[in-house]
Amino acid sequence: MLTLYISPGSCSRASHIALAESGLDYQVSLIRFAEGEQRSEAYLKVNPKGRVPALVTDKGVLTETVALLPYIAQLVPEKNLAPLDDPYLFAKMQAFNAYLSSTVHINHAHGRRGARWADNAASHADMIAKVPKTMRDSFALIEDGLVEGQFVLGDTFSVADAYLFVMTGWLESDHVDMAEFPKVAAHYRRIEMRPAVQRVLAEEAAAKPAA
Amino acid sequence: MLTLYISPGSCSRASHIALAESGLDYQVSLIRFAEGEQRSEAYLKVNPKGRVPALVTDKGVLTETVALLPYIAQLVPEKNLAPLDDPYLFAKMQAFNAYLSSTVHINHAHGRRGARWADNAASHADMIAKVPKTMRDSFALIEDGLVEGQFVLGDTFSVADAYLFVMTGWLESDHVDMAEFPKVAAHYRRIEMRPAVQRVLAEEAAAKPAA
Repeated sequence: MLTLYISPGSCSRASHIALAESGLDYQVSLIRFAEGEQRSEAYLKVNPKGRVPALVTDKGVLTETVALLPYIAQLVPEKNLAPLDDPYLFAKMQAFNAYLSSTVHINHAHGRRGARWADNAASHADMIAKVPKTMRDSFALIEDGLVEGQFVLGDTFSVADAYLFVMTGWLESDHVDMAEFPKVAAHYRRIEMRPAVQRVLAEEAAAKPAA
Repeated sequence: MLTLYISPGSCSRASHIALAESGLDYQVSLIRFAEGEQRSEAYLKVNPKGRVPALVTDKGVLTETVALLPYIAQLVPEKNLAPLDDPYLFAKMQAFNAYLSSTVHINHAHGRRGARWADNAASHADMIAKVPKTMRDSFALIEDGLVEGQFVLGDTFSVADAYLFVMTGWLESDHVDMAEFPKVAAHYRRIEMRPAVQRVLAEEAAAKPAA
């Protein structure tokens, strides 16, 4: 049984959607960030980085969304959750995921986790003020690369769509109206309707901490 | 022929090392950051993100180190530059690469690219002051995960070693002494001696801008 450690609404939602799309058996375990559980002794044994997601497999623990998404896809090649047989397209997908991870998520993080990179309250306020611009700039690039009515990779759903869905869902809290990006907004609404996504949203709401 | 756009000493060095290890034919093209060439109209047509690395293939342009490293490995499976046949180990490698990309590189970037995330000079100074701590914290985690005398994945060289080599090489400019991390320092010296790495350092020094 796979166990995914999650925080509702966080980037763990992308791997959670991939699991729900996979048809594999899995369970989720809630890490309550508001209570600092990501820094608890018990959780640091699971993931010394003190972040979600972390996926417990029968071989060990895996972390990092850009590693988990293709891993879950590889467990169920028949589900075509990633272009596993085409190295170029696989790299295209991973480049997209890497941009979300190391640019878009980082932009967003400056609105709430500025203490990672600076100590003064004035610096944090300065960072928070810039988040709408950096998120808008990133989503302008994403909008340019999307085709209307399509998925990130074109005709076929992939785990990259799950990840984009999560990032787009953060825009409102970053004071950016997703309607500024019509293709992104249409993508969000299309992904949101998938049964796997609806299952994930329900499982997040019902998730319980590890005993 | 593959063409890699590079900036000497930047994270493009990791993909450059992977190419040199691969035995594939490739050429490099210099992007002069000091002259702002990464934002030139010509280069933005190659990579709209205005960053290096970018790899021009016969199918199109690929970006992002965590996508390029496994892609290069997949082009030459006989070279064993990544555990391509073991999804779990492959995900372990990608998790390591993703940590370098979205945590370690980001820490480092706050020492010189703070304007990405905040506008005030005082905020940039605050960020610069914190870089030694964030880099030290990250390398403490990396040191804990490394085995003395070994590679990132254990017994076998992989593209993750190329990436770690580049990040370790940044420590001095971040005011962290790599000697604080003996296993990391030994790893750096071992990787530096590889013929492919020596070739890359020479090619960086001799690199010319695109005509």
